Amino acid sequence: MAKIHLPGNKIHKKKFKIHKKIGKAPGTITYMGNRENAISSLDVIAYSDEYAEEYSPVQIESLLEHKEKEVKWINLVGLSDEEFIGSLGRSFQLNSLVLEDAVHTEQRPKIDEYEDYIFGVFKMIYLDDQQNIIIEHVALTMFKHHVLVFQELKEDVFNSVRQRIIGKHGRIRSRGADYLFFALLDAIIDNYFAVLEHISDRIETLEEEVYQNPKPQTAQKIQGLKKEVLKIRRYVAPVKELVSRLIDSENPLITRDTKLFLRDILDHCLEINESLQIYREMVMSLMEMYMSNMSNKMNEVMKVLTVMASIFIPLTFIVGIYGMNFDNMPELHWEKGYYMVWGLMIVLLILMLIYFKKKRWI
Amino acid sequence: MAKIHLPGNKIHKKKFKIHKKIGKAPGTITYMGNRENAISSLDVIAYSDEYAEEYSPVQIESLLEHKEKEVKWINLVGLSDEEFIGSLGRSFQLNSLVLEDAVHTEQRPKIDEYEDYIFGVFKMIYLDDQQNIIIEHVALTMFKHHVLVFQELKEDVFNSVRQRIIGKHGRIRSRGADYLFFALLDAIIDNYFAVLEHISDRIETLEEEVYQNPKPQTAQKIQGLKKEVLKIRRYVAPVKELVSRLIDSENPLITRDTKLFLRDILDHCLEINESLQIYREMVMSLMEMYMSNMSNKMNEVMKVLTVMASIFIPLTFIVGIYGMNFDNMPELHWEKGYYMVWGLMIVLLILMLIYFKKKRWI
Amino acid sequence: MAKIHLPGNKIHKKKFKIHKKIGKAPGTITYMGNRENAISSLDVIAYSDEYAEEYSPVQIESLLEHKEKEVKWINLVGLSDEEFIGSLGRSFQLNSLVLEDAVHTEQRPKIDEYEDYIFGVFKMIYLDDQQNIIIEHVALTMFKHHVLVFQELKEDVFNSVRQRIIGKHGRIRSRGADYLFFALLDAIIDNYFAVLEHISDRIETLEEEVYQNPKPQTAQKIQGLKKEVLKIRRYVAPVKELVSRLIDSENPLITRDTKLFLRDILDHCLEINESLQIYREMVMSLMEMYMSNMSNKMNEVMKVLTVMASIFIPLTFIVGIYGMNFDNMPELHWEKGYYMVWGLMIVLLILMLIYFKKKRWI
Amino acid sequence: MAKIHLPGNKIHKKKFKIHKKIGKAPGTITYMGNRENAISSLDVIAYSDEYAEEYSPVQIESLLEHKEKEVKWINLVGLSDEEFIGSLGRSFQLNSLVLEDAVHTEQRPKIDEYEDYIFGVFKMIYLDDQQNIIIEHVALTMFKHHVLVFQELKEDVFNSVRQRIIGKHGRIRSRGADYLFFALLDAIIDNYFAVLEHISDRIETLEEEVYQNPKPQTAQKIQGLKKEVLKIRRYVAPVKELVSRLIDSENPLITRDTKLFLRDILDHCLEINESLQIYREMVMSLMEMYMSNMSNKMNEVMKVLTVMASIFIPLTFIVGIYGMNFDNMPELHWEKGYYMVWGLMIVLLILMLIYFKKKRWI
Amino acid sequence: MAKIHLPGNKIHKKKFKIHKKIGKAPGTITYMGNRENAISSLDVIAYSDEYAEEYSPVQIESLLEHKEKEVKWINLVGLSDEEFIGSLGRSFQLNSLVLEDAVHTEQRPKIDEYEDYIFGVFKMIYLDDQQNIIIEHVALTMFKHHVLVFQELKEDVFNSVRQRIIGKHGRIRSRGADYLFFALLDAIIDNYFAVLEHISDRIETLEEEVYQNPKPQTAQKIQGLKKEVLKIRRYVAPVKELVSRLIDSENPLITRDTKLFLRDILDHCLEINESLQIYREMVMSLMEMYMSNMSNKMNEVMKVLTVMASIFIPLTFIVGIYGMNFDNMPELHWEKGYYMVWGLMIVLLILMLIYFKKKRWI
Repeated sequence: MAKIHLPGNKIHKKKFKIHKKIGKAPGTITYMGNRENAISSLDVIAYSDEYAEEYSPVQIESLLEHKEKEVKWINLVGLSDEEFIGSLGRSFQLNSLVLEDAVHTEQRPKIDEYEDYIFGVFKMIYLDDQQNIIIEHVALTMFKHHVLVFQELKEDVFNSVRQRIIGKHGRIRSRGADYLFFALLDAIIDNYFAVLEHISDRIETLEEEVYQNPKPQTAQKIQGLKKEVLKIRRYVAPVKELVSRLIDSENPLITRDTKLFLRDILDHCLEINESLQIYREMVMSLMEMYMSNMSNKMNEVMKVLTVMASIFIPLTFIVGIYGMNFDNMPELHWEKGYYMVWGLMIVLLILMLIYFKKKRWI
Repeated sequence: MAKIHLPGNKIHKKKFKIHKKIGKAPGTITYMGNRENAISSLDVIAYSDEYAEEYSPVQIESLLEHKEKEVKWINLVGLSDEEFIGSLGRSFQLNSLVLEDAVHTEQRPKIDEYEDYIFGVFKMIYLDDQQNIIIEHVALTMFKHHVLVFQELKEDVFNSVRQRIIGKHGRIRSRGADYLFFALLDAIIDNYFAVLEHISDRIETLEEEVYQNPKPQTAQKIQGLKKEVLKIRRYVAPVKELVSRLIDSENPLITRDTKLFLRDILDHCLEINESLQIYREMVMSLMEMYMSNMSNKMNEVMKVLTVMASIFIPLTFIVGIYGMNFDNMPELHWEKGYYMVWGLMIVLLILMLIYFKKKRWI
Repeated sequence: MAKIHLPGNKIHKKKFKIHKKIGKAPGTITYMGNRENAISSLDVIAYSDEYAEEYSPVQIESLLEHKEKEVKWINLVGLSDEEFIGSLGRSFQLNSLVLEDAVHTEQRPKIDEYEDYIFGVFKMIYLDDQQNIIIEHVALTMFKHHVLVFQELKEDVFNSVRQRIIGKHGRIRSRGADYLFFALLDAIIDNYFAVLEHISDRIETLEEEVYQNPKPQTAQKIQGLKKEVLKIRRYVAPVKELVSRLIDSENPLITRDTKLFLRDILDHCLEINESLQIYREMVMSLMEMYMSNMSNKMNEVMKVLTVMASIFIPLTFIVGIYGMNFDNMPELHWEKGYYMVWGLMIVLLILMLIYFKKKRWI
Repeated sequence: MAKIHLPGNKIHKKKFKIHKKIGKAPGTITYMGNRENAISSLDVIAYSDEYAEEYSPVQIESLLEHKEKEVKWINLVGLSDEEFIGSLGRSFQLNSLVLEDAVHTEQRPKIDEYEDYIFGVFKMIYLDDQQNIIIEHVALTMFKHHVLVFQELKEDVFNSVRQRIIGKHGRIRSRGADYLFFALLDAIIDNYFAVLEHISDRIETLEEEVYQNPKPQTAQKIQGLKKEVLKIRRYVAPVKELVSRLIDSENPLITRDTKLFLRDILDHCLEINESLQIYREMVMSLMEMYMSNMSNKMNEVMKVLTVMASIFIPLTFIVGIYGMNFDNMPELHWEKGYYMVWGLMIVLLILMLIYFKKKRWI
Repeated sequence: MAKIHLPGNKIHKKKFKIHKKIGKAPGTITYMGNRENAISSLDVIAYSDEYAEEYSPVQIESLLEHKEKEVKWINLVGLSDEEFIGSLGRSFQLNSLVLEDAVHTEQRPKIDEYEDYIFGVFKMIYLDDQQNIIIEHVALTMFKHHVLVFQELKEDVFNSVRQRIIGKHGRIRSRGADYLFFALLDAIIDNYFAVLEHISDRIETLEEEVYQNPKPQTAQKIQGLKKEVLKIRRYVAPVKELVSRLIDSENPLITRDTKLFLRDILDHCLEINESLQIYREMVMSLMEMYMSNMSNKMNEVMKVLTVMASIFIPLTFIVGIYGMNFDNMPELHWEKGYYMVWGLMIVLLILMLIYFKKKRWI
């Protein structure tokens, strides 16, 4: 089975990180991940209906100029340089709590609305080339004219959005920053479906294993899968509530038109939550099925033992009788005695077999 | 057992489809089913209180004319021709998200209200001639004077509605498009009851199997049924909420009179959800019962083994004693020795039988 | 155990009935029960503070006259005559959906408020003389001055109400139709308590059976009881919600005084739902207990087998040794050899018994 | 284990009582308990800031006079004298439904607000001298200047309140009837904590029994405890909701100051409900633990059987070989033959022991 | 495994304490803990933007003076001196119910808003040096210019807050008493994370034990862990609701800015509750896994028994045959008879081994 990069491991590491955080004042920028000493770098895609340009790397100062009708997508890669992120935050006048959450890689999904921007933390969950489930932290900050993305690694799930901007596919170039925010969120959630499919496939594989050839390790695999579903649900389930609240809010940063698209995302979230719920029940059924198969196997083993013992123990008793050494045992001296004993034993054997046949044990 | 066309299989196929969708801009019309290259065709039934006429096939242009008091029921069969559906959508000024959902055959049930129309996605669930459960995607769009239906195959559950229109049964001819929308939805939901009955029958059959003659496969069948109930619930349960919201909305497209009928549908939805809940608990009971029967069978097997072993092992020991070859074993030379051993063994046997009888093991 | 007339059977029959209904226009009067060809007849009790008179049978026309301060209780027995019911409905200007539900014997409990009347469907659940649980459909329609009751059979749970009217017990004669409606509903719900007691008794009986003498059939009985509780809950649980909504509605047909009594009914409904919940948990405990008893029994069987086998298999081995025919076996020629073997075996036996005693297996 | 006076028994008796009630008009005073023919008597404690006096027994007429600033606590003991209670009710102008509930000893907890008074039914749950759990019905009616208490027996949980009034402890003498009502309710709920402790103790005792020395009866005790927790929850859980509603109501009978104290009671109710929830989960864990212990024991029994059988069955086979009577068996005539067989058997035995040691079965 | 100081023990002791409280008037200061005769002492940290000073011990009188812009953090250590606490309460004009809860060490978490102050009870849960989980009662009272903390022991979780005040780290010195209240609450909740990690570690350790080497004690450890999770949840879960209500309240004591920080705490509470929920499900999975392992082990034991018995019992029967002493047994006199029997037995053995191999039992 493919190795799974799941928070199971991260939790173990978090122990040291958590101690790093306990006792610090709230709002302190404290990187919680395990990719320390990464260099933070900024990429920008600036676009309007007429043009789309990529700059990389850029300086913080150049980000603050604003051309009319231009939307800027600013990507920050690498979250361990706390000082750099601090100065970036000051340039964009971000609340210190926002910066804290932006680099807090264990932060659960959230959307907070501030006066000039909307800040959201999500988890990118995707499969790498070896079909491992990768969970990465990402934070999106939407301003009136730009979207600021915090991510740990250069790899992300946003390539399709980049292509749509550069290649001018769809309506993205003619819309504002709110649509970009939506498009990024949509890309994150689209990838959840691929992960769900992966889980669904693994459930099917395990189901076959349980039905065909259950081994003690099968139970471990089922429990492992259950834990994964639990953990993915943890990162995915809250998104529904968050998006729903965003739709209901009257934030002027989001146009009515974009809300229509957010409703579409909400729909996807509902579907994902339902699927996870169903997967959970299926995994529980698998365990039940496994236990029932164990029971069946035990039954089979016991039947073989019972049939063998019940047939041969009485026969052994009979031959034991005529192994006794009494002086006076008339049967021993009958000429046909030996054959009569054989006859008796064969009759007994046949009766036994009929009995077990009737009980469907053989 | 009848073969069941359930999403179990579809999910497997969806894998390839999902990849088709990931990365596309939202609102892109992407057919998700597995009936590609189907030719889309349009049928129309136009009726008013005085007349009812069927046209097939028709061109898109002819659909847009409107005679007074006429209601048009437009049926689009075949969803894989994305271009054709695009142009149909433009003619009716449908939102691109609507078109996307209309051909997205894996879309969960939804009702969205737009300014000029109400759009709903549902699942037709019905039994085919071999008692297979068929789940088909259907999308209904209700305008002021016509209802546009998207479906994959010509087979549907709407024949009774067609007959009522043509044969002028009931009140359907004298009412507007909202009543047609309701009548179609009612036909979809009426079929759910037939499927529920089918499931109820299968629960009864399995119950008998569990009570009379449980086999290892019985557990598999129970788990399979559980999965089916789970999946049907997934497509059926959300409808209740959707209809309830439609009743509470103040959409001018729905007359007060039709709302009365929608309340009737809501009632059916409640009943369906309750039934599914009960079936789920019954299936869980079946599994419990199966496990308890396995336990009972094991008990029976063990009792036979124990009775046989407990009776014959001591007797074999006794005959073993007198099979020993000691020079000095006085009993061997007693004249009645052999018969006394027989006597002893018969007494032991009777005591054993009494003991096991008292324990109710035989 | 008493035979139970439960929907288990009805569901089986409903299959044919449902097909009768699928495809019909909503609002079509379709009798769903299995007492076809029954003749519908009307009884009336007309009363005011001064008098109370019974008429039977009566014609529809005579029902529509209204004397001041008179309340009419109209009982329709027999629901299969769809034509008669149609004309009755027209006389009372009942909505076609109301008539459909009135004869739809599988209809779940509901209360619908119309402009001039309140329509409710309930289930009479009571014990017949053989302690069978009988579930019967009843529909109540309350107008300003009369209450129209639809029932399938002449037997009902309303005798006490009839006696109170005729005998002028309590306040019923001096109150309006709304109080009559309440009194009928109260009579229905009072009978639920008797059914709950019956179930509580059966739980106790089964509990004793599980503790004293569990048999494989005991598990079947437990599961059967569980199914009954599930099904009764289905018909009883929604009533609470319905009554609560009726109390909150501002319908002028119900006086403030009668609402006080409805609150009393609501209280009873709460109690019934709580009892059903507790019974459900108790039945689940019974099943658990049964499984634990099976386990105990298996343990006991295994202990007997293990004790017998562990004692006699080694002893048989010992006697087997001295049954060997080697030329050179010195022990065989010792004079006390035989007795020494007996001594050894008795010592072994005692050690074994001590060991098993210490383990509390004997 | 102490005998528990739990509704388990009462339910059985209720059967006859319920029939007493079915068919009676609502509002009929029907005593439901099993202490018939008890004589009803009235005690009164009248107090103000300056004085506190007890009268016993008193006549109904003397209760209705009211001195300024005086609060009267009227205790009615004995609920079976339906006529007496009827005349008391008329004197205080109580609604007939109130009187019905006051003597309905099976009534679930409730608080109803009427224009001039607040009526509540609760359960006193306390431990008697033999640590039995006693559940007694009590009804409190709070008027502007007096509180009327209905109870079955003279024993109650209000002694501490009496002492505080007589001894002028705390603030009770200087406050109105609403504070007395609160103080009585507080006394009832304080006793719930003692019962919870008793249950917590019994859980611990059972836990030890399960861990140290589980017997078949242990499972019965666990299930019995579960039933008790279920039943106590039934009488205790609704109180939270009732008190919460009373706090939110704007009833002028309750001063703002007393509401602060009611909030304290609400707090206690929350704690009680949480405890009951935790106890329930603990009892379920106990049952799980018991089953796992049964499994362990079975495993141990099977291991002993397997070890004994696996060692001695092959050895018995070997000695059987040399018990055969073939003319031509060279080994029998070897001089060391007998000793070589012993050697072989000892080697086999050692190998077996090593194998079982490695498997940790011995 | 480390010894755990959990309420399991405290509950046992509470028995005597509860009796101390029953019957007392509400609002009576009754110390409920088991650290009687502790001397209460007061420490104060007074700070403003310019300075921060610690005083210890201080007299009650000196606490009431207030310098402008100064915030006072008053720490009361030792809760058993009921008289001292009474006089402190009177000085600060605290409601008697507040004082009662402040020393009621079994009080569940609560936040009550009074006119001039906000009172909250929480549990400090932290690990001591031996990794024991310690649960300590703490009560916070926030006034306009000071925060009054009630705690039992000098040890607390507030050292980081002290350091931030003294060392002037972060924004705490420039803010008011509401921010101090938040900072203390934040310190309490930060420690919950460390406890959660400890539990997560123990789950992992137990998981390994279950997979590698499950022993009967393993089940006890799992159940013990479950109980701990249940109890921690009890003290931690309510905090979410309380903080959420505080954020929604319009209390002028809390500035809008501090509410932003409270929202951060709310976020942490959500995460903690989710983690506890996941841990609970994981512990339940562990138990399931343990039971499945027991089942597997039993299966293995049974297979060994069955294989040994099924092979050797028939062989023993065969050698028994030729141990019989009939006069007329021709096989005994065949020259190759003995070797032919050996041949037969070896063939049988091989067939058996093939059969068991095919069944995967060996």
